[in-house]
Amino acid sequence: MTDQPNNISEPEEAIAGGGLLDRRVFLQKSLGVAAGGGLLLGSLPTLAGEIPSGMKVPGRPFSNYGEPSPHEKEAVRWISANSMAPGNGISWTPLHRLEGTITPSGLHFERHHNGVPSIDPDQHQLLIHGLCRNPLRFSLNDLLRYPMVSRILFVECGGNSNAGWHDEPIQTPAGYFHGLASCSEWTGVPLSTLLDEVGLLPEARWLIAEGADGAAMNISIPLEKALDDTLVALYQNGERIRPENGYPMRLILPGWEAVLNVKWLHRLQVAREPVMARNETAKYTELQPSGKAHQFSFIMEAKSIITHPSPGHQLKGPGLYQISGLAWSGRGRVSKVEVSADGGKSWAEAALTDPILPKAFTRFRLPWRWDGSALTLKSRVTDETGYRQPERSQLIAERGKQGYFHYNAIVTWAVSTDGSLSHVYA
Amino acid sequence: MTDQPNNISEPEEAIAGGGLLDRRVFLQKSLGVAAGGGLLLGSLPTLAGEIPSGMKVPGRPFSNYGEPSPHEKEAVRWISANSMAPGNGISWTPLHRLEGTITPSGLHFERHHNGVPSIDPDQHQLLIHGLCRNPLRFSLNDLLRYPMVSRILFVECGGNSNAGWHDEPIQTPAGYFHGLASCSEWTGVPLSTLLDEVGLLPEARWLIAEGADGAAMNISIPLEKALDDTLVALYQNGERIRPENGYPMRLILPGWEAVLNVKWLHRLQVAREPVMARNETAKYTELQPSGKAHQFSFIMEAKSIITHPSPGHQLKGPGLYQISGLAWSGRGRVSKVEVSADGGKSWAEAALTDPILPKAFTRFRLPWRWDGSALTLKSRVTDETGYRQPERSQLIAERGKQGYFHYNAIVTWAVSTDGSLSHVYA
Repeated sequence: MTDQPNNISEPEEAIAGGGLLDRRVFLQKSLGVAAGGGLLLGSLPTLAGEIPSGMKVPGRPFSNYGEPSPHEKEAVRWISANSMAPGNGISWTPLHRLEGTITPSGLHFERHHNGVPSIDPDQHQLLIHGLCRNPLRFSLNDLLRYPMVSRILFVECGGNSNAGWHDEPIQTPAGYFHGLASCSEWTGVPLSTLLDEVGLLPEARWLIAEGADGAAMNISIPLEKALDDTLVALYQNGERIRPENGYPMRLILPGWEAVLNVKWLHRLQVAREPVMARNETAKYTELQPSGKAHQFSFIMEAKSIITHPSPGHQLKGPGLYQISGLAWSGRGRVSKVEVSADGGKSWAEAALTDPILPKAFTRFRLPWRWDGSALTLKSRVTDETGYRQPERSQLIAERGKQGYFHYNAIVTWAVSTDGSLSHVYA
Repeated sequence: MTDQPNNISEPEEAIAGGGLLDRRVFLQKSLGVAAGGGLLLGSLPTLAGEIPSGMKVPGRPFSNYGEPSPHEKEAVRWISANSMAPGNGISWTPLHRLEGTITPSGLHFERHHNGVPSIDPDQHQLLIHGLCRNPLRFSLNDLLRYPMVSRILFVECGGNSNAGWHDEPIQTPAGYFHGLASCSEWTGVPLSTLLDEVGLLPEARWLIAEGADGAAMNISIPLEKALDDTLVALYQNGERIRPENGYPMRLILPGWEAVLNVKWLHRLQVAREPVMARNETAKYTELQPSGKAHQFSFIMEAKSIITHPSPGHQLKGPGLYQISGLAWSGRGRVSKVEVSADGGKSWAEAALTDPILPKAFTRFRLPWRWDGSALTLKSRVTDETGYRQPERSQLIAERGKQGYFHYNAIVTWAVSTDGSLSHVYA
């Protein structure tokens, strides 16, 4: 402690092209970032002359419920709604302005079919009926007496990242391209517990879930998933679920496309067959080259994106930066994320931030010394099943370009010599 | 899947007095909660007659930044400020209304000495000076280029739970007794990295940290902790730190009392000796029976509380409930939480929710069948060092009653036959 080394000339350990450094570099001492990396350093100030203005006056008092700084007004959801039906559309999580893995509940993405219903929790009930011995209704207070579990899980729209199918690369901040995905701590009652209560009949195979919104949004869920890890969630990031995320209760199907995670849940019908709802026939299906469509493509395959730096950010000259991004897989844990700064010729393994949880956002980071040249940044994730995120050309070769949902190809950001970034297909 | 058992008469496994059931009971099938436990069940409805009102009209449109439901107005911080100096005081996290482990940023407890300063992040700088070779100033943009780490960590005021020292048990909701503790995902730059940049001199032993608030709040931090796991945090639960939690940057000292986690951090002076600031002399010290006081009692020892049920909650008659609470330790991981429903005569081990992270809130849960009789509920935590939360009598025997800070004794809730709860010393 008394004899800190300060070997600012200690060599960095480049492990791939384009300036990527070993992920452990930042665990070592004495990078000399400030001295060698071009960070702006003032001369030692005369303290008396530079008292921040906030220290000269009392600050504002306490608040019952806090809000972000007024200087963070750009860290908001970007709304893309139907002008003829303002309750139909989406809003995007600004992933390019966030760090860590938790999405603040106020910034969780939205997908509504007919707006956010106003629900009095004391009037709301969940009905489970159909092919069961004891159809039951559960009030919110009933559910609060049941055993609950908490899990940090991503929720991702099946249509997330679909601009990747476009012929030309979309130019938009990363969150407004890939931000129909968010990650929260969800707390609720295992659906299997409630299905035990109603007593499933032997012929039960599906659940038809319905939300209490103005679209009467409904969809079919295989009973196997319902009995596995599905939750009737009541809390999101510690507090009751937000209205736009299903208050007072929603389904959470870990790793499965968000459309199945029915919000404002008020009815589960146990059935022999799926109901063939709009959102499992006309939408959320995969059109094949043959003209037929695959239904029930539930699982969100592994995906990764670099959030920092990304389009809209501006590098302030050559020097040391941190590449940071998110990876996740609907099949389990992220096992590896690799980053390339030379268009995929060489790859370096990024550090993954603990805890690495199944079906949750995982933050990856890698130090990078930019030499000021034009280059491209990519990330690719491998999940614990061994599945590796494909290049775009590979995804298109396998699936064609007639699809809309489940786009998960490697994303490429081009860095220009002026320090700006753009989305490219390369 | 096709032949679910529904043996609602399957016996429960009582493992301690007062109706405590094995923590694995809820992982088994067929509890018969609804059939046997008194949950309110309606008869099977005629669906046409009971369409929820929210389904008959379009809902409200999208929002850039979401807020809780208007029905959750009681899930707020409770403010206790100095009427003569409204920026001086505290506000409490409503732990009795939360579940899981993450505290929503809007509900993180507050402790301000002179209010929340208004800080323009583009004008804010962190100065590190004193016993170092290269005093440096870091803008927010400088810091954003450094390597960052993310950790889920509790922050707890040294004065949390101090009503436990009162002669009579305080009657207030659990969060307004123990809610000067909150848990967030913090993301920031390891302070050790920045201290390497400035080049510590051999005689350096302490850091004097100062906040940019109207109190010029300052305190001394041992260099060993600064070089260990201390962060200069920039993000809280994914987004930039909230104003009342230190925007745009604060210290996070995992497991150490909150007063050291200086908010609105703008200066770190490397020193040979502590500065003997108000908050390490007149306050945040431990008065001993001798009349002398212990200084620098940094670590928050292990604590647990039952949040559900707790005072203000109302049990709705005999039957099955879930006991749920929070445990944490400033020394590392929680290794065990035990619950008693018979005043401490017998104890049952609660289930801990994964991931169990060091110096973070850990949620514990245990099923409980209340028989309607008067009884008392307690929880006690053991951390990975083997330290076990003491009974109140034991704490007082060891430390006397002249103290104010660092109260962490076992908390006892009395359940009355009418289903109400109160705080008792027993």
